[in-house]
Amino acid sequence: MLVSPGEIVVIPQGFRFAVDLPDGPSRGYVSEIFGTHFQLPDLGPIGANGLASPRDFLSPTAWFEQAHRPGYIIVQKYGGELFTATQDFSPFNVVAWHGNYVPYKYDLSRFCPFNTVLFDHGDPSVNTVLTAPTDKPGVALLDFVIFPPRWLVAENTFRPPYYHRNCMSEFMGLIYGIYEAKADGFLPGGASLHSCMTPHGPDTKTYEATISRADANEPLRLDGTLAFMFESSLIPRVCRWALESPHRDLDYYQCWIGLKSHLSLHDSAVMKDEKED
Amino acid sequence: MLVSPGEIVVIPQGFRFAVDLPDGPSRGYVSEIFGTHFQLPDLGPIGANGLASPRDFLSPTAWFEQAHRPGYIIVQKYGGELFTATQDFSPFNVVAWHGNYVPYKYDLSRFCPFNTVLFDHGDPSVNTVLTAPTDKPGVALLDFVIFPPRWLVAENTFRPPYYHRNCMSEFMGLIYGIYEAKADGFLPGGASLHSCMTPHGPDTKTYEATISRADANEPLRLDGTLAFMFESSLIPRVCRWALESPHRDLDYYQCWIGLKSHLSLHDSAVMKDEKED
Amino acid sequence: MLVSPGEIVVIPQGFRFAVDLPDGPSRGYVSEIFGTHFQLPDLGPIGANGLASPRDFLSPTAWFEQAHRPGYIIVQKYGGELFTATQDFSPFNVVAWHGNYVPYKYDLSRFCPFNTVLFDHGDPSVNTVLTAPTDKPGVALLDFVIFPPRWLVAENTFRPPYYHRNCMSEFMGLIYGIYEAKADGFLPGGASLHSCMTPHGPDTKTYEATISRADANEPLRLDGTLAFMFESSLIPRVCRWALESPHRDLDYYQCWIGLKSHLSLHDSAVMKDEKED
Amino acid sequence: MLVSPGEIVVIPQGFRFAVDLPDGPSRGYVSEIFGTHFQLPDLGPIGANGLASPRDFLSPTAWFEQAHRPGYIIVQKYGGELFTATQDFSPFNVVAWHGNYVPYKYDLSRFCPFNTVLFDHGDPSVNTVLTAPTDKPGVALLDFVIFPPRWLVAENTFRPPYYHRNCMSEFMGLIYGIYEAKADGFLPGGASLHSCMTPHGPDTKTYEATISRADANEPLRLDGTLAFMFESSLIPRVCRWALESPHRDLDYYQCWIGLKSHLSLHDSAVMKDEKED
Amino acid sequence: MLVSPGEIVVIPQGFRFAVDLPDGPSRGYVSEIFGTHFQLPDLGPIGANGLASPRDFLSPTAWFEQAHRPGYIIVQKYGGELFTATQDFSPFNVVAWHGNYVPYKYDLSRFCPFNTVLFDHGDPSVNTVLTAPTDKPGVALLDFVIFPPRWLVAENTFRPPYYHRNCMSEFMGLIYGIYEAKADGFLPGGASLHSCMTPHGPDTKTYEATISRADANEPLRLDGTLAFMFESSLIPRVCRWALESPHRDLDYYQCWIGLKSHLSLHDSAVMKDEKED
Amino acid sequence: MLVSPGEIVVIPQGFRFAVDLPDGPSRGYVSEIFGTHFQLPDLGPIGANGLASPRDFLSPTAWFEQAHRPGYIIVQKYGGELFTATQDFSPFNVVAWHGNYVPYKYDLSRFCPFNTVLFDHGDPSVNTVLTAPTDKPGVALLDFVIFPPRWLVAENTFRPPYYHRNCMSEFMGLIYGIYEAKADGFLPGGASLHSCMTPHGPDTKTYEATISRADANEPLRLDGTLAFMFESSLIPRVCRWALESPHRDLDYYQCWIGLKSHLSLHDSAVMKDEKED
Repeated sequence: MLVSPGEIVVIPQGFRFAVDLPDGPSRGYVSEIFGTHFQLPDLGPIGANGLASPRDFLSPTAWFEQAHRPGYIIVQKYGGELFTATQDFSPFNVVAWHGNYVPYKYDLSRFCPFNTVLFDHGDPSVNTVLTAPTDKPGVALLDFVIFPPRWLVAENTFRPPYYHRNCMSEFMGLIYGIYEAKADGFLPGGASLHSCMTPHGPDTKTYEATISRADANEPLRLDGTLAFMFESSLIPRVCRWALESPHRDLDYYQCWIGLKSHLSLHDSAVMKDEKED
Repeated sequence: MLVSPGEIVVIPQGFRFAVDLPDGPSRGYVSEIFGTHFQLPDLGPIGANGLASPRDFLSPTAWFEQAHRPGYIIVQKYGGELFTATQDFSPFNVVAWHGNYVPYKYDLSRFCPFNTVLFDHGDPSVNTVLTAPTDKPGVALLDFVIFPPRWLVAENTFRPPYYHRNCMSEFMGLIYGIYEAKADGFLPGGASLHSCMTPHGPDTKTYEATISRADANEPLRLDGTLAFMFESSLIPRVCRWALESPHRDLDYYQCWIGLKSHLSLHDSAVMKDEKED
Repeated sequence: MLVSPGEIVVIPQGFRFAVDLPDGPSRGYVSEIFGTHFQLPDLGPIGANGLASPRDFLSPTAWFEQAHRPGYIIVQKYGGELFTATQDFSPFNVVAWHGNYVPYKYDLSRFCPFNTVLFDHGDPSVNTVLTAPTDKPGVALLDFVIFPPRWLVAENTFRPPYYHRNCMSEFMGLIYGIYEAKADGFLPGGASLHSCMTPHGPDTKTYEATISRADANEPLRLDGTLAFMFESSLIPRVCRWALESPHRDLDYYQCWIGLKSHLSLHDSAVMKDEKED
Repeated sequence: MLVSPGEIVVIPQGFRFAVDLPDGPSRGYVSEIFGTHFQLPDLGPIGANGLASPRDFLSPTAWFEQAHRPGYIIVQKYGGELFTATQDFSPFNVVAWHGNYVPYKYDLSRFCPFNTVLFDHGDPSVNTVLTAPTDKPGVALLDFVIFPPRWLVAENTFRPPYYHRNCMSEFMGLIYGIYEAKADGFLPGGASLHSCMTPHGPDTKTYEATISRADANEPLRLDGTLAFMFESSLIPRVCRWALESPHRDLDYYQCWIGLKSHLSLHDSAVMKDEKED
Repeated sequence: MLVSPGEIVVIPQGFRFAVDLPDGPSRGYVSEIFGTHFQLPDLGPIGANGLASPRDFLSPTAWFEQAHRPGYIIVQKYGGELFTATQDFSPFNVVAWHGNYVPYKYDLSRFCPFNTVLFDHGDPSVNTVLTAPTDKPGVALLDFVIFPPRWLVAENTFRPPYYHRNCMSEFMGLIYGIYEAKADGFLPGGASLHSCMTPHGPDTKTYEATISRADANEPLRLDGTLAFMFESSLIPRVCRWALESPHRDLDYYQCWIGLKSHLSLHDSAVMKDEKED
Repeated sequence: MLVSPGEIVVIPQGFRFAVDLPDGPSRGYVSEIFGTHFQLPDLGPIGANGLASPRDFLSPTAWFEQAHRPGYIIVQKYGGELFTATQDFSPFNVVAWHGNYVPYKYDLSRFCPFNTVLFDHGDPSVNTVLTAPTDKPGVALLDFVIFPPRWLVAENTFRPPYYHRNCMSEFMGLIYGIYEAKADGFLPGGASLHSCMTPHGPDTKTYEATISRADANEPLRLDGTLAFMFESSLIPRVCRWALESPHRDLDYYQCWIGLKSHLSLHDSAVMKDEKED
């Protein structure tokens, strides 16, 4: 299975796999889930087609190797620990097999995004590629969500991701380009983590730029960007490797310094009138 | 409850109601469903907000009248037949009452439409305002769907409703403006019916105009139009009144006369190549 | 299986049965349901015990007869019609058998009734003995409900069945005693039918007697009465035999003649004040 | 939101809140649940009305404050630990907002209790005000149950809570008055904990008083009392603060000392006869 | 799609299809279901593999024809009636298409049958190939069941289909060979119908031959036979064409004439003893 | 309750019980599950009868003892720890009681096994006696599965348990006889544990003997053996007592030493041809 940048791979529980990197060092993001499998979200009113389509998920064709492979090392994860075993043959020597799961890959550029097309800002869940659900409808063990190139056409609307606090923890990464809600400091290969009930939203620079746009109601094509989010109902623990990393951004909170209230008494009055209708 | 053009009213089963028309003759569309209640669709990946919002459905405030009303006529429908009774008081004399259902209205201009924002044509179910579901997920007794003003931004896409045959029967009406898939002959107050598994789609004029647009990939704002659809998994029977109406359009099928294949051998070859990737 | 007055019998679909009446003529009520089986209602907050208890439903012990029985007539209902066959042996000749259903009986005096014990009038569904559910939670194909002897203790409450219209059709019968909502004219062996969305409630005499009681807040033991209701979400058709019966009560509606409004302006004001709290 | 004694407040996950006590020291009971929200129980056969009614849950009207508030301290609980932050403005400065949850309060005197009205003792679940369910029907993460003033009318029945062991852990508190199953020692503001599968029931004094009542079958109005229970399928751990409290009642078990068997051989024979019927 | 004898084809609702018979006259069985789709049964304890396997259902590869076809006749069934239309092109001219359903075929010899392997006779549902379920678990709109070649090894067991009456209606056909429960008269191409609650089972000749076998506990391989059953919870109506057919077997009931009781008093006593264990 | 070898007993949560061993030392296997109850598996296509039958589960008849029993010691498990209490009476002194659970026993020789009867090897889940399910269909907290005497008749099939890795952890024990997949070293009273995703299958000796059988397609009756499996979706922790036991088999892995590939190029080619059909 040849996987290019912009593609994702899902490997089911317990599969033996090897990763070959033909062209030198590489970076990626990995999430391991316990307790369920990824599936396509039930599309709800989106209906028969849209978002990720089953026909775009590709599985490898069968293959095996029988050659003698002295000193082949198998690394196995069990109960949270890694174990190592050495054998004289490749583990990819299975010739025939019946089972229900296979690895698969998906090219994120095949994703068909939906969004509001008149006003208001949609929930990012509308960009869910795959979901690992819990038993509670609407609460995911892990949602894999992307922010691909797309048109923004909502009128009278603050178009970047809105300020919010919610019950999910959001781990974001950037695959290429610039993320629409962070003008600086969020680079491809980087990651941000907003834990459950922590308020967050666009940085000050993005906010001020947005509300002062003259063409705020014109269609805007968001180009050359691909960010993603692992969104979970669980609270993630950050491992020591990350906490002690020299790449950790200790000044992240400063991106919101300078945000100020734009509410005037006049606005407040208008709001009150609207309520009375 | 004051209801204006562009608003809908839902009256629960068994409610006594009277309709007052202050300004002379009026027209509207009515659907009666048996066996379930209308509800908001489960939004699926659309998530927390979008389409019709609960806060926009308005119920009347309490009111009653105690006056003597000699000769008040009650018309009751029971088992498919209409019965009439006369009484000396208004049926709206209930002073206190506990129950689970009330009539409500909704202004269709409050609807927050979603659609594809990069490519492809969405399923019209994405515009579902209210649904009366069956026990089978995804199969409605009746969906009430609207086609409101909105932006069309899908690229490399035939943007009008696509040609299709499906298992639902579709009754459409036009509230104002021009419907995007019928250049002529579908007027406000009119209605069309495409029964289960009957192929349909844009008329010839719309089709030819669409595929020859020079700006087919530019954002387009669909303005000044409001069509709707009652979509049901049941097969409707057309009553005699409609079959014998002078307004019945016996030439409707002619809107598709002249549609012709635009496929050339070259296109076919391209398609085959794509399959081989 | 010996069945006495005050007991009910349930015979599963397709069972062959014979009814012996040792003591001369007898009367009873029969309901036949299609499409599902009777079951105990899910007790909800009532919890582990209450209403009808599984241990009180009694099944017959095994028995068979092998004797020659010339001219035995079998009557079979199939597709709504009755068919007759004659054979020379009893149909009760099954010696061993595996299956999931048996007939059973239940003594209605074993029923453990629940009701409000401080104020307000409960829904009659709280007296459900057996229910034949539909797929829609809370909507029964047929509920079998009884009104047994019990204490009425609700304070500041109109204690007889309240006036209502609802989506179920209610067929009531009286097994013995006097029914609390009909002072006259509803006798043991009789029956009333209030169809879907037909308003009904206590007769005038019961109403006036109730609101003028001096001891309306004292505990009252309802004794020596047993009424029941078949309540269905379907609309029953009345057969010709019943419509043409000399026992049909054509003056039933007169039991409500004379009901009058007891609302005065003062009451109305009180109600408004309560709303403002 | 003004909350008086006898009222409860539910604050959804993640909400910022402040508690003002205008009249000096106060006491209350708090339960925090993880993983789901409180909801009204499905009423089952109780039907359309009863127990806590949706119309009695009150939400605050909108309000915000914009004033400068130097040194405002926010305490946030995250992952089981408390964090503190200082800011110069009130957190209640949100002017407009869309969301699905709001705090609400409920006056427990609005509760409409149900119980047995002929014989037998009901399950305390019949007094459930709010439930935080698990995925297993009938098994609650937490039930909030109350024991309000009400009539006891069950005949031939031991009316206080029965002796039992069950799979739930029960934390009880008393809001005012005297609890019906503990003659002494259970005071307003106190609490008892009966863990999963620990047998418990009325104290000896209550038991002996009950079985020797001459009027045991007369209606009895339980007045001037309000106890409650947090009932959970989880096993609670008692924190050190409670274990080391001077208010801990180390002699609690003594309330059952002196309970003795009232069974005689004659009773035993009667029971056997009943079985044979 | 080339379909051979012993294969089945499923055509989804609304598909246009044509049947070509290259080798002269042919016979087959057709069932049309309304309201749901065929699916593989949930295997329950059979687990991951067995019965019909998804990998054995074959769909056609894409194909289209663009040729001019004057006078092509389309027959369409709608609302129970057949309609005819004539057009100048093949309906199989669809070049590209998105949808959720395709026709498929299945070779019945791929079926992996399960059955009892020690004693007792299994329910024929264990041979379900495809099921069209209702909302009621275990109650099918239509089950398609086969009786393929297989080993019979149950000991101390009456191995042919047992005598029974049940709530399903059973339409059986024979594809080739001899059916195990009808020694005579049930031929390939024929069909039998046992309606809901009609008792049936092996004919007299099969019964007597079975109970007198000397090798009744030896493994027996049932060879060279393939029968099937359409089993439905609905009551089928037989059309006039079948009722008036010269092929209707008016003497079918005679296959059971001569069945007689083999019960002796001694057997009866044994049974009673067993009960007492 | 008298329990003999070959029978199992299920004791519900919280029950007080005592075990009497009349005939000296004894051995058995115990599994304790938390969070749900054992139930019969939904039989799926197996239908109305088969595997363990409800009528074969036996409950004890009522009994109590009132005698004075000084020094009676009660051992109670709570929160993973054991507590001890001493009392002067037997805990089996309950004379009358209402509840939903009782202990029961089941004789494993009553189990009616199903399996493939033409070809292929079934999933061991087909021998499930009782299951303690999770909320995820098909994923058990604990399945209790047995491998009783039965006929093996699958043709062209490797009949012993196949080699596999899966997501369940399998704890096996042998009650009597020889287990079909382990020629040596797995004795009655012993146990094996194959954790989640650990590959396992028959030992080398069994494998080689199986593939060289001349009568591999003849019916084979597996006699005089009874093994069982506790299969769980959880990962078991092995306690210190077992890890340090002198009975622990440190050479277990050697049973697979010597397994070798029997694949030749010719086989590979055949497989490829089959794929092309």
